[in-house]
Amino acid sequence: MSTDRIPERAPMGWNSWDCYGPSVTEDTVRKNAEVMSSRLKTSGYEYIVVDIQWYQPSALSHAYEPFADLNMDGYGRLLPAENRFPSSAGGTGFKALAEYVHSLGLRFGIHIMRGIPRQAVHQNTPVCGTDGKYHARDIAKTASICAWNTDMYGVDPEKPGAREYYMSLFSMYAGWGVDFIKCDDICRELPHEEKELILISDCIKECGRDMVLSLSPGPALLEKAALYRATSAMWRITDDFWDDWKLLYAMFERCEKWSIHTGSGCYPDADMLPVGAIRQNAGESNRTAFTEDELRTMMTLWCIFRSPLMIGGDLAKLDSFTEELLTAPHILSMHENSRHAHQVWRKKTDTGEYVLWTALRAGGGQYAALFNIGEEPGHAEFPISELEPVGAYSRCRDLWSGRESAAGETMGAELSPHACAAWLIC
Amino acid sequence: MSTDRIPERAPMGWNSWDCYGPSVTEDTVRKNAEVMSSRLKTSGYEYIVVDIQWYQPSALSHAYEPFADLNMDGYGRLLPAENRFPSSAGGTGFKALAEYVHSLGLRFGIHIMRGIPRQAVHQNTPVCGTDGKYHARDIAKTASICAWNTDMYGVDPEKPGAREYYMSLFSMYAGWGVDFIKCDDICRELPHEEKELILISDCIKECGRDMVLSLSPGPALLEKAALYRATSAMWRITDDFWDDWKLLYAMFERCEKWSIHTGSGCYPDADMLPVGAIRQNAGESNRTAFTEDELRTMMTLWCIFRSPLMIGGDLAKLDSFTEELLTAPHILSMHENSRHAHQVWRKKTDTGEYVLWTALRAGGGQYAALFNIGEEPGHAEFPISELEPVGAYSRCRDLWSGRESAAGETMGAELSPHACAAWLIC
Amino acid sequence: MSTDRIPERAPMGWNSWDCYGPSVTEDTVRKNAEVMSSRLKTSGYEYIVVDIQWYQPSALSHAYEPFADLNMDGYGRLLPAENRFPSSAGGTGFKALAEYVHSLGLRFGIHIMRGIPRQAVHQNTPVCGTDGKYHARDIAKTASICAWNTDMYGVDPEKPGAREYYMSLFSMYAGWGVDFIKCDDICRELPHEEKELILISDCIKECGRDMVLSLSPGPALLEKAALYRATSAMWRITDDFWDDWKLLYAMFERCEKWSIHTGSGCYPDADMLPVGAIRQNAGESNRTAFTEDELRTMMTLWCIFRSPLMIGGDLAKLDSFTEELLTAPHILSMHENSRHAHQVWRKKTDTGEYVLWTALRAGGGQYAALFNIGEEPGHAEFPISELEPVGAYSRCRDLWSGRESAAGETMGAELSPHACAAWLIC
Amino acid sequence: MSTDRIPERAPMGWNSWDCYGPSVTEDTVRKNAEVMSSRLKTSGYEYIVVDIQWYQPSALSHAYEPFADLNMDGYGRLLPAENRFPSSAGGTGFKALAEYVHSLGLRFGIHIMRGIPRQAVHQNTPVCGTDGKYHARDIAKTASICAWNTDMYGVDPEKPGAREYYMSLFSMYAGWGVDFIKCDDICRELPHEEKELILISDCIKECGRDMVLSLSPGPALLEKAALYRATSAMWRITDDFWDDWKLLYAMFERCEKWSIHTGSGCYPDADMLPVGAIRQNAGESNRTAFTEDELRTMMTLWCIFRSPLMIGGDLAKLDSFTEELLTAPHILSMHENSRHAHQVWRKKTDTGEYVLWTALRAGGGQYAALFNIGEEPGHAEFPISELEPVGAYSRCRDLWSGRESAAGETMGAELSPHACAAWLIC
Repeated sequence: MSTDRIPERAPMGWNSWDCYGPSVTEDTVRKNAEVMSSRLKTSGYEYIVVDIQWYQPSALSHAYEPFADLNMDGYGRLLPAENRFPSSAGGTGFKALAEYVHSLGLRFGIHIMRGIPRQAVHQNTPVCGTDGKYHARDIAKTASICAWNTDMYGVDPEKPGAREYYMSLFSMYAGWGVDFIKCDDICRELPHEEKELILISDCIKECGRDMVLSLSPGPALLEKAALYRATSAMWRITDDFWDDWKLLYAMFERCEKWSIHTGSGCYPDADMLPVGAIRQNAGESNRTAFTEDELRTMMTLWCIFRSPLMIGGDLAKLDSFTEELLTAPHILSMHENSRHAHQVWRKKTDTGEYVLWTALRAGGGQYAALFNIGEEPGHAEFPISELEPVGAYSRCRDLWSGRESAAGETMGAELSPHACAAWLIC
Repeated sequence: MSTDRIPERAPMGWNSWDCYGPSVTEDTVRKNAEVMSSRLKTSGYEYIVVDIQWYQPSALSHAYEPFADLNMDGYGRLLPAENRFPSSAGGTGFKALAEYVHSLGLRFGIHIMRGIPRQAVHQNTPVCGTDGKYHARDIAKTASICAWNTDMYGVDPEKPGAREYYMSLFSMYAGWGVDFIKCDDICRELPHEEKELILISDCIKECGRDMVLSLSPGPALLEKAALYRATSAMWRITDDFWDDWKLLYAMFERCEKWSIHTGSGCYPDADMLPVGAIRQNAGESNRTAFTEDELRTMMTLWCIFRSPLMIGGDLAKLDSFTEELLTAPHILSMHENSRHAHQVWRKKTDTGEYVLWTALRAGGGQYAALFNIGEEPGHAEFPISELEPVGAYSRCRDLWSGRESAAGETMGAELSPHACAAWLIC
Repeated sequence: MSTDRIPERAPMGWNSWDCYGPSVTEDTVRKNAEVMSSRLKTSGYEYIVVDIQWYQPSALSHAYEPFADLNMDGYGRLLPAENRFPSSAGGTGFKALAEYVHSLGLRFGIHIMRGIPRQAVHQNTPVCGTDGKYHARDIAKTASICAWNTDMYGVDPEKPGAREYYMSLFSMYAGWGVDFIKCDDICRELPHEEKELILISDCIKECGRDMVLSLSPGPALLEKAALYRATSAMWRITDDFWDDWKLLYAMFERCEKWSIHTGSGCYPDADMLPVGAIRQNAGESNRTAFTEDELRTMMTLWCIFRSPLMIGGDLAKLDSFTEELLTAPHILSMHENSRHAHQVWRKKTDTGEYVLWTALRAGGGQYAALFNIGEEPGHAEFPISELEPVGAYSRCRDLWSGRESAAGETMGAELSPHACAAWLIC
Repeated sequence: MSTDRIPERAPMGWNSWDCYGPSVTEDTVRKNAEVMSSRLKTSGYEYIVVDIQWYQPSALSHAYEPFADLNMDGYGRLLPAENRFPSSAGGTGFKALAEYVHSLGLRFGIHIMRGIPRQAVHQNTPVCGTDGKYHARDIAKTASICAWNTDMYGVDPEKPGAREYYMSLFSMYAGWGVDFIKCDDICRELPHEEKELILISDCIKECGRDMVLSLSPGPALLEKAALYRATSAMWRITDDFWDDWKLLYAMFERCEKWSIHTGSGCYPDADMLPVGAIRQNAGESNRTAFTEDELRTMMTLWCIFRSPLMIGGDLAKLDSFTEELLTAPHILSMHENSRHAHQVWRKKTDTGEYVLWTALRAGGGQYAALFNIGEEPGHAEFPISELEPVGAYSRCRDLWSGRESAAGETMGAELSPHACAAWLIC
């Protein structure tokens, strides 16, 4: 287990939301972990993340049940719903499940909502570690609620007992073996909830176990970039991303703006990859609506930009195309080695719209990625000088095909609508 | 008892807030009612209104206790705290207290918060009148809360069960004998809570008893004037008004803007009159910080503008100056008979600032009120033609002194800072 | 000639713009004055106003010719184009034309643009009355131009010479016999040009002849009402008004907001009346597109609101319907005697939209005007109590038909779309 | 002379504004060119730019004389004022001066205002190349003027004759031998003047001589970055920059935001360098108010960011400190070789504020620049890993002292307030 809470590379893994919404179960988590371990781990994927409402016994679909009764301990801390996570019986939380995930050589993550359960506030449970001195009503921030979910009140970080509450939470998670926290209802809630974010970040740093902190939901606020970097390892730059070209098209502008804030273990997050079998929670058998070209465009953008790569599709239904997409070796190598990435230009012509990105490669060489984001096929090209090369490059590798060739003065490609090309020149 | 829910004159009465905040008790209410009956009723004062949190057993001060346990029936309807309102024992609500108030020849009012108690939602109480079909969680509007009080969730007016909930509430109040509802957390919450306001107004109209509906808190939204008129009898045009010249100074502009929306039983409300002994709830003996000139200026503006006159001071401590202020006969006659009131001008000079209002008098004649709202004493005058007289006036009565004189071509007065003069010309 | 610059009644007259745009000629002005004198004067119409660019020799249509050469004296003051106004030959200005208008028992007005001709600035003409000390370039405000006309630069009111320039202008107009100044490019240009407005107003007051000052173009700024009242007799509350129902519909809200700023010789101005033969300047024979119902609605609103009544149609082509419309005796009596007018309510129903106004009558009685501003015919009624009567009224006169009847408890009418009814009750 | 209008390196040179405002003379220009040729040319400085109002005979100070008479040819094209630029006698323009500058091995630039002289519009001069078909009044955009200078009207790019006007202008400049155009009143005037910018850019590209187009004044609009890149070589990202720490402090945020838009011959421009003897035009002998630390900080930021380097100080008074500052070899090498520059972080602590930038070096290695922008001295350091190195670096050179050392795991410096350190690691 790494002892470094700053990930050297943008986190890679699987998250239960795109398939199962709030209704994921232990069995499903285990199965996805097993597939990841056997088929994706060698490519770098390592986090298995249980998303929202694992503490809600009656969660059945992608919609939230308002004011549902939650599984909670005597200190107002939520526990896994035992009917959905049998190994958590007896108040042991995710300990057994985390151990299983670790046994597969992977890391284990959970989703939390900022704050304290409203149910704890109405029961006025004591805050753990305060000898009964403080209770839930003492620390709840009365008018801070989530706009889309009824589980929690915010915690007022300036109230005595607030720090003890959060410390007790992360200590418990550390005891379970949690490696990754996706904290929700916080990323775009600045500046209102800024001090609560800082408190959460501080408590995670002090909890005795290295955990990656991931912030949701987006869009994050560009002017708060320094705060995200100081408190977390990744933060969402978009509202929920799904298999819809309009959302992928819009991501180009988001990535352009956020590119200067990537680095040193801090990753603007373009959200989960809606690949393969998604939206499985209601017995459906939906597959991603993205075309193969769009999926490659998504992977290329995420990798040169260095977004975290969290798979949204059900790994138990992993098909060979999706597996190849997710493990394309040169593309993943770009994800690992891209540095100082930024958009070079974006051009609108009468018939199309194209985007060019570049990044330096750690270890030498330079990446280029060319995208056709218009609605017509077309040829696009550019002189290598536009990439502002920092060395004299002679070779060129196509990152999707792996083919190598001599590098000329110009580069280019014939591209279908929504398709892309990516190269390493060195 | 009137059968007319449209008050012919802006409501006059007493409200417990300025003295007692959320901690008023039955004993205090009775005492205030008795003084009103004996000393103020003949001047037109008639409403005795119990303000916020009468259902909160541990309310002790002007501050709210977050998430306090409230006294509630099995249908999620709040009941008076029996320790504070002993006559409500046995679930009888305010019936006995209302009867007592009625026996004194007065009317009885209560404050309510928009919505349904959070405590009812967490207990998921059934909605009265739905045969157990709907419960609190079915009608609560999940992300609609009050910014400054934790008692309630909003009710989603489009959910089945919402109308039954509100009907059950106002039917219960009708059974108690309530004549006046001050509904809070709604007046300035438009357009978000517009449909909930309409539902509340409809249910009051259908509840079987005439009740005056008063909306709080302000400032009301000028562009929603037609909606306030259609749903209520009075609505607050300001945030809480206290004994502070800055607030009184600001009221001139509020009244100027709202004057065109007064009439036909609809009254923009400049808030309670902080006169005499206020802020009594914590054992203090505070008196209003307004000077006598400022108090007369307040009464003059409220009366020509036709604001409701709700006394904020403790009537058990009613001194003779305050009693004379509140019962000044010609000023109250202006409150009753002012029509089509509006500001004539507001003038800033090097040394002062003056405001002139006029109104027609129902029955003949015309009012004028001249205010020195600057910080220097000074003489101000105006030709009667600026009042746009609708008749040939020959007499002039000073409304504070009662002195009569011949009307000349110009009128005017020597005024101390914050002082005023008011006349009837006829 | 009145010696009172505060008009007792909102000004009534004719303005050349709606028919002739910038291309009106002396002959046309004389003919319109003659018709006014013989057929409209006894109803109260008295101003004959020559609108924009009377100084532009080549003005031929409703469009402005950019940077045209203007007729100007040696002090940078514009003079009538002699080819269009022959009686102005020899630099005598409008003296002869004004005399003719006065000989008909009428008053004479002209339009001016705020500022100093750009042509004067480029020639750097001396400022009259400064002994050659100041020139046009010394007083021009370099970055203050009109957005829609190239004739002028603004004048910087703080520069020495600025006051002398404006005094020389209005002294010249006084010498010509001008009674009315419509000053353009100023009304909505606040707060930027506030000091220039005050300078213009001061200079008119000191020029030795009573002149009514009218400000254009609208929409005026509501928050500047006190400034308009202090500087002018009328100010435009709308951009140019034409024969289009959408504009008439929108006027109801404008009048509602401005009603509290009418009075004491100050009149918010709803703009010219596009009646009869308009847009005549290019040889066309256009007639107003308003229906007869809409025309009566316009007159009724303008009159109860007390807007100035400036006829836009060509009086040489005055037909009998238009003449009756403009001279309807009871409606014009309302224009003269309306006081304290304001909207009572505006109601939107499933099938229609209705507006009710009331005003007191100087001399006794009260006006009511009911408008159907929806798209369906319908019956609307209201209890007289909603008018907040100030006396006991027994009689009712229909102001368009002149019919009298007994006044009941309610009033109402069957109204076609865009039609209205108006009454005097007394 | 280069035939490439896309500068490989951000332009370097001298501009007359900071010393002489609108009143520079030929003699001064020649002297500055001579000093540049002898002492700065070998460091890369090459442009000599004559700033605003060279066509104004009576310009004497830093202030503009409103509506001054300008020297103009019969086609409305401005010509150098012959009293200030004697070699332009006989309508030969800047031909002789440009030749002299070229003879020194330098390039020659001039400032222009967007548009056509107002004086040309008032004279209605013909547009050159249209055979008298179009005149100034046909192409002037009537309501488009500069907010701070009275020389010009905008040109309406959609009017016939507009293109011919601009082509005639740049053809004349090409004939004079102009290499650089600083076009003013355009950079921040988007989107209003967007089409005029495109027309100017197109005409320069077609005029037959390579010219660098520089846009003023700032601040440029971030959302228009693509348009600036498509039309010009450099554009101002700030309003006028002077020797004031507040402005230098603010530049860090400007540079951070614009860094992703640098490259491929396109340079966001942080404005002239107010070094040495500035503000000389009124006989004063002012020197820059920046401290030596601040001057180094400015140079370091401009160079790593790759801003154009246009000297504002009088070269005839070039002192040795300033000369060393402007020619520091390793700093200028960073200006030439910096690629993919961006801010790494900006940190505020209790006692200070620090900024770290990095850039790749063309040819290998990486730059780092560390700034103390707070008000206290302090030590700042960072792990090299935060620079996201793309290679294994072992050596470190201090760019101001030239000293080399071994590169460790961390770098840092003791910095006075407003001071900086800069390194190359390789």
